[in-house]
Amino acid sequence: MERIHRSLSEKTLTKMTPTEFRDLVRRGEWSTVNTSACRGHAHANLVIVPKSLAYEFFLFCHRNPKPCPVLDVTEPGEYHPHFLAPEADLRTDLPRYRVFENGAIIDEPFDIIKYWNDNLVAFLLGCSTNFDWRLRDANVQYRYIGDFKTNIDCVPAGCFHGSMVVSTRLFKTSHDAVRAVQITSRNLAAHGPPVHIGSPHDIGVHDLYHPDMFSFHEEIQPVEQDEIIMSWACGVTPQIVALKSNIPFMISHYPGHMFVTDKLSEELEAM
Amino acid sequence: MERIHRSLSEKTLTKMTPTEFRDLVRRGEWSTVNTSACRGHAHANLVIVPKSLAYEFFLFCHRNPKPCPVLDVTEPGEYHPHFLAPEADLRTDLPRYRVFENGAIIDEPFDIIKYWNDNLVAFLLGCSTNFDWRLRDANVQYRYIGDFKTNIDCVPAGCFHGSMVVSTRLFKTSHDAVRAVQITSRNLAAHGPPVHIGSPHDIGVHDLYHPDMFSFHEEIQPVEQDEIIMSWACGVTPQIVALKSNIPFMISHYPGHMFVTDKLSEELEAM
Repeated sequence: MERIHRSLSEKTLTKMTPTEFRDLVRRGEWSTVNTSACRGHAHANLVIVPKSLAYEFFLFCHRNPKPCPVLDVTEPGEYHPHFLAPEADLRTDLPRYRVFENGAIIDEPFDIIKYWNDNLVAFLLGCSTNFDWRLRDANVQYRYIGDFKTNIDCVPAGCFHGSMVVSTRLFKTSHDAVRAVQITSRNLAAHGPPVHIGSPHDIGVHDLYHPDMFSFHEEIQPVEQDEIIMSWACGVTPQIVALKSNIPFMISHYPGHMFVTDKLSEELEAM
Repeated sequence: MERIHRSLSEKTLTKMTPTEFRDLVRRGEWSTVNTSACRGHAHANLVIVPKSLAYEFFLFCHRNPKPCPVLDVTEPGEYHPHFLAPEADLRTDLPRYRVFENGAIIDEPFDIIKYWNDNLVAFLLGCSTNFDWRLRDANVQYRYIGDFKTNIDCVPAGCFHGSMVVSTRLFKTSHDAVRAVQITSRNLAAHGPPVHIGSPHDIGVHDLYHPDMFSFHEEIQPVEQDEIIMSWACGVTPQIVALKSNIPFMISHYPGHMFVTDKLSEELEAM
């Protein structure tokens, strides 16, 4: 499987409309990280399950609203998310996917046409990309270091159980850390406030320099002594849960390869 | 069917613990309006449906979070709401219930022991009693006049469709009205901000002096010209929806006769 990455500047990617970006992806011309795409438009994490598991997964999201804030749920077999982007096609419009079967990743394809059937229900979940934009808009200084598996147990629901994944950020000043708590607290549709302030060792993360799930950076600069470390619930959590719970069948986005919606991030807050 | 109303002062009712109040109800010694009970503790509206309808009702709540903010969902057959009040019994601990069958109210009993079975799922929904306390704590001056059926369509989900019920309040000053928007916006677990500012005629309410669903008052004082009228989504909405949608079987609380949880209202906000 080969990655395709059309050479676009980050600025071009940032300024694209959601339709333009999704068309690019659908044509097979963008299949890598898209956290910079269509700045201001809400990104969404994806979880697709068979109808028979949809109620239990919905309950799991309700009981774990920080990792899994539900933005939209499609009707069985429907791949157009009517609320978030009615023209989009969830089978082709994400840069990359993961396919899970009986607790294992069986494929990481660039579209899911061959896996789609009329029995599948798609959940679109809020994404931390949205609050990263808000933090930058507010001139909060920080660095993102990666996504980590923790020992925080999610509240189980039906067959879904497992531990929470977090995304971790470092802040140089108390002022910036406090602003980050304030700003993300207003963004319940994008994971809300942090779940942990302080050393990630406390929540079972033992190597900050080697993120378990996802990182933008090849090499992470050492944490400095005065840096405040805060961790937010992460939308990759359902992927860990699928593995742990031996979910018979599930499709997700590939970490960092999100669905870009037509909605402005701001539109989804405090509705 | 006779109402039982033990003579307790409002002050006594307000100061009771949730356990004390639910015991009173369970003993058959309180079966009327309980909006004053256990001040500070979250009240909840109740909807019980068969498991076969639970997914569609859950989706209805998700799509209509203002009238139906979900606080807790029980496992099928489970009448102890583990998250909100593990010792409580949902079959006996509300002052009064309504039972719906094929789009009609067939009973308004004081307990639902004879209707309970292992196939039922209970949804506990946020309640405006909780934000009324917050408004009073903030010294916001207003008067509640009643609950009204509107022409605002809820977003349908599966077999659930129908119009929204609102609770309407009158404010003498812009300051108080603005404070009420601010305070209720922070209370997404209790219906959130208003759905309408201005004359309820705009949303299909034609007689403010005769609430459709519920009122504390026998006689409503006339609206004065300088009063600002604001309406909030109301937890009685699923009852209108059950009637309109011919739902085969549903049980709800009787309007104004809510479940009192162990949680403080504040505990449920911005979690």
